[in-house]
Amino acid sequence: MTPRRIETLALPGIPLVQPGDDLCDLILSALGRADVTLRRDDVIVVAQKIVSKAEGRYATLGDITPSAEAVALGAEVDKDPRLIELILGESTRVVRQRPGLLIVEHRLGFVLANAGIDASNVEPTNGDERVLLLPQDPDRSCKQLRAAIAGITGTTPAVIINDSIGRAWRYGTVGTAIGVSGLRSLLDLRGDKDLFGRELRVSTVGLADELAATASVVQGEGAEGTPVALIRGFAPEAEDGTVGELLRGENEDLFR
Amino acid sequence: MTPRRIETLALPGIPLVQPGDDLCDLILSALGRADVTLRRDDVIVVAQKIVSKAEGRYATLGDITPSAEAVALGAEVDKDPRLIELILGESTRVVRQRPGLLIVEHRLGFVLANAGIDASNVEPTNGDERVLLLPQDPDRSCKQLRAAIAGITGTTPAVIINDSIGRAWRYGTVGTAIGVSGLRSLLDLRGDKDLFGRELRVSTVGLADELAATASVVQGEGAEGTPVALIRGFAPEAEDGTVGELLRGENEDLFR
Repeated sequence: MTPRRIETLALPGIPLVQPGDDLCDLILSALGRADVTLRRDDVIVVAQKIVSKAEGRYATLGDITPSAEAVALGAEVDKDPRLIELILGESTRVVRQRPGLLIVEHRLGFVLANAGIDASNVEPTNGDERVLLLPQDPDRSCKQLRAAIAGITGTTPAVIINDSIGRAWRYGTVGTAIGVSGLRSLLDLRGDKDLFGRELRVSTVGLADELAATASVVQGEGAEGTPVALIRGFAPEAEDGTVGELLRGENEDLFR
Repeated sequence: MTPRRIETLALPGIPLVQPGDDLCDLILSALGRADVTLRRDDVIVVAQKIVSKAEGRYATLGDITPSAEAVALGAEVDKDPRLIELILGESTRVVRQRPGLLIVEHRLGFVLANAGIDASNVEPTNGDERVLLLPQDPDRSCKQLRAAIAGITGTTPAVIINDSIGRAWRYGTVGTAIGVSGLRSLLDLRGDKDLFGRELRVSTVGLADELAATASVVQGEGAEGTPVALIRGFAPEAEDGTVGELLRGENEDLFR
């Protein structure tokens, strides 16, 4: 079941995404331009940013009235209190803070800076600063996109939404899954044997995160304009799965 | 510089590695079997396990006399005190502990469980349990392997040693770089602009870790016997780099 060869391709010509855009259409058009016919062993990896844009997850800072809590925290971490208000609204708690840095637990369970809210690659409107929140329910977004693709093409690839997320002990973001459909996110090897018939040390693999990182190599971060990647050659063992499989519960997590 | 397409291939037929084996020979033979001629835009990713084996980084638990500290910690975390002795010897400090779990800062700066020491895929000898430590200096191992490959083939790929390492807030290990040669580990985008000419939110990318995760998808964890992957299509911007670029210093790390 471990593939021998995978190919990872940035889909060309994805336009700037607007609220209400149909990502399925955009992706199928890009596949057509790349002369790629979808296969069952394809994984479509979509950057969080364009999913959030299509779903209209914008907020305009000028519309936000920060609470006293947001004003106080904003002063502590040296960030716009209106942005803090949005971050707190998307979060269940602050995990770590210091000037310039605010790491929270997102309501979806992810631990990440600023609740994933950001302004880069977001079009300004009338000089009023807009920011973009994570999708409301990224697993659902994946499921819907997967069903839409299957409905039109007759082929059902797996779908991952990824975002560039920082790590505890290492510099640099890594492409990480925030939504999954069509594959098991966590590969469970408990009970599997090593080359000598013994239990494996590594018992679970964050497979959706490894695929999310793979896609990130070709998606880039900046002005490439390539927010969708196709990974070919990965045939999932099981088609059910959610990103929640990857999230440590509070009791299992020693680093909150 | 972001590639549009990469291909990732598990090299076939790598035999069980023994101390003193020449990894360069084994890899070039495997490339020959796969009918692959090395290119400048190739990255060779080698699993930690076979580098440690080739370098003879074994320890035999029967040879270890645990210190009082190791005995006490072993009782607390419910692990063999001889293994604890080895873990402490490879570590600068204990980061977190609880029964069944010991996370340390390795002398090389990595934060990981059991200092990366493990017994899976290690051949037993005369019933005496052997374990395998991380390579002495994985960056040096990469550099030497890279030079050896260049010396024989005339082509100089980048080389990464990867290991399956757990994360703070997520279940499942992810392939992670522990040694690097021939590419910048951390991609620095500070000063780069987004699609609208603004500073990027993501300022540094853990590129060597993304490539290490990519390789892991085809390497697997168990009895696949495919510890070496070739990533084709990634042309590094700069050839100098170490894994140390990825490691947060104590003052930059809020999670120790």
